[in-house]
Amino acid sequence: MNIHEFQKLMRRIYYHRDSKRGTTRTFEWLVEEVQELGEALKERNAKALEGEFADVLAWLASLANVVNIDLERAATIKYDGKCPKCRQVPCNCSV
Amino acid sequence: MNIHEFQKLMRRIYYHRDSKRGTTRTFEWLVEEVQELGEALKERNAKALEGEFADVLAWLASLANVVNIDLERAATIKYDGKCPKCRQVPCNCSV
Repeated sequence: MNIHEFQKLMRRIYYHRDSKRGTTRTFEWLVEEVQELGEALKERNAKALEGEFADVLAWLASLANVVNIDLERAATIKYDGKCPKCRQVPCNCSV
Repeated sequence: MNIHEFQKLMRRIYYHRDSKRGTTRTFEWLVEEVQELGEALKERNAKALEGEFADVLAWLASLANVVNIDLERAATIKYDGKCPKCRQVPCNCSV
């Protein structure tokens, strides 16, 4: 599934709710999902971990819908095949 | 671009570095990118916002690489066309 399709799916399922909730509170949900991902990483339960990765991606796409950002466009403009900073593959940045 | 391709691109660019850095520190980078997204949401600069959404997706995919999770598989198993909780489109959950 491409990134754009996934974002459209999130729009069909959640936009009516997320757009009412607004940007700040939708962002807070994303932060909470990232924290849950952090917990799942410690537990090393592969099935739970998959679910938490899915949730973070879902909330990121939902938040992008609320603020009218095309996540696929954003990702492929910045990450156009090379590291956006050093322009190398693999990345050769000093950081 | 599909989710899997984007994750493979992140692997080509960053895996050598992220795998050395390890799960905990790669997760910390993701958290930092989410915080930067939060700041960009307040500033309402569309171009900067696109970049921050791209970065969060990039770090999420990189972290998935480090812990061997297929992000597209995870996302499409949990979000299989309906809300995973209420099984409705649009979501009809009470929360």
